[in-house]
Amino acid sequence: MKAVCLLSGGLDSSTCLAIARGNGYSCYALSFDYGQRHKVELDAAARVAAALGAEGHITVPINLRVFGGSALTADIDVPKSRDAAEMSGGIPVTYVPARNTVFLSIALAWAEVLEASDIFIGVNAIDYSGYPDCRPEFIESFERMANLATKAGVEGRTRVRIHTPLIAMSKADIVRTAHSLGLDFRLTHSCYDPDASGRPCGLCDSCLLRKKGFADAGLEDPLDYRA
Amino acid sequence: MKAVCLLSGGLDSSTCLAIARGNGYSCYALSFDYGQRHKVELDAAARVAAALGAEGHITVPINLRVFGGSALTADIDVPKSRDAAEMSGGIPVTYVPARNTVFLSIALAWAEVLEASDIFIGVNAIDYSGYPDCRPEFIESFERMANLATKAGVEGRTRVRIHTPLIAMSKADIVRTAHSLGLDFRLTHSCYDPDASGRPCGLCDSCLLRKKGFADAGLEDPLDYRA
Repeated sequence: MKAVCLLSGGLDSSTCLAIARGNGYSCYALSFDYGQRHKVELDAAARVAAALGAEGHITVPINLRVFGGSALTADIDVPKSRDAAEMSGGIPVTYVPARNTVFLSIALAWAEVLEASDIFIGVNAIDYSGYPDCRPEFIESFERMANLATKAGVEGRTRVRIHTPLIAMSKADIVRTAHSLGLDFRLTHSCYDPDASGRPCGLCDSCLLRKKGFADAGLEDPLDYRA
Repeated sequence: MKAVCLLSGGLDSSTCLAIARGNGYSCYALSFDYGQRHKVELDAAARVAAALGAEGHITVPINLRVFGGSALTADIDVPKSRDAAEMSGGIPVTYVPARNTVFLSIALAWAEVLEASDIFIGVNAIDYSGYPDCRPEFIESFERMANLATKAGVEGRTRVRIHTPLIAMSKADIVRTAHSLGLDFRLTHSCYDPDASGRPCGLCDSCLLRKKGFADAGLEDPLDYRA
């Protein structure tokens, strides 16, 4: 069975791909070059797709910089050293407008061409940094829409399923699951603000959540943080 | 009030923009360079946006050719001279996988940045050529999803509305409405297979539907068809 797997090269999406592979899917990994600051994640995505034996890997250029509106795509500073209370206090500036909606829509297009009915996305509603499009009710609603949007849906041939195996996991659960599936953590990349060589900052929300996940799981993160 | 208006430069989307302007919206026209064969429609979109006084106009490059799967983006011949029975016989090869889902998602992203809650799309369920993502149930489902996807939706600040003023119109109704709003039909472009100079073929589904619309409305189409 074919599945389209959204893959940023971060810990979550890499773990999600490892789970899909572990469940026997032929995986078609899909990454986006959306004008993000942290382009080093695209290299990570390519490494992870190859290491996990994805059937294919495509990077779609989609310039969300034309709109601005997020610290990940516009000239807004990435917040650093925030504690859990600050992270949970509303939607952060690193939110990219409608990002998962856009990414899932393009995944749906590829799935339709591949005649795949399964899409995997590594969203997480526990340590999710407050993004609206990571919530289960959003995913369910997208799935309903997807089944009305496509040729296969209309012809009753198939049913699109959006798989979110990480949605109820803590970051520590994700680290443990990835470890048990043999994911090489050195290949993954999570930082919102890496330096030119790709070294993670260690202080942005994404680095802090990742570090805490490894600490809670009692495993060592092999990445070489700047702080 | 701001609205994002999807604009291909064709008759339907141009009429839809004219309606939004007529309803007093400040319109932000959104076009896509998606690897379509008929690039001449992007020039039409720019002309129409300017003529109708859009507040802004952006063309987002999004390469759907990486997936293939449609006569509009892949090397499949555009069907010609089909009659109404052939056109209504299932989903045609000119269908672009999940196109309206992708386009509406990107419109949603721009709307979120603009803090606009209104999106206009010129889909039509009557003379709709059999595309699944032109049906009212698809649009309603997208709207529900959109209200779960965004910051504004989560914070209860606003409600995204997807406006489809053409959805129940025949092509003749669309021609008559556009005429009454003063749309200059020479600026619009509908052909799936124009020649190098942009002259419409007159035989593809889109040309045939447009010609029939003008004939039924009793108005003259100023375009110079090849056939």
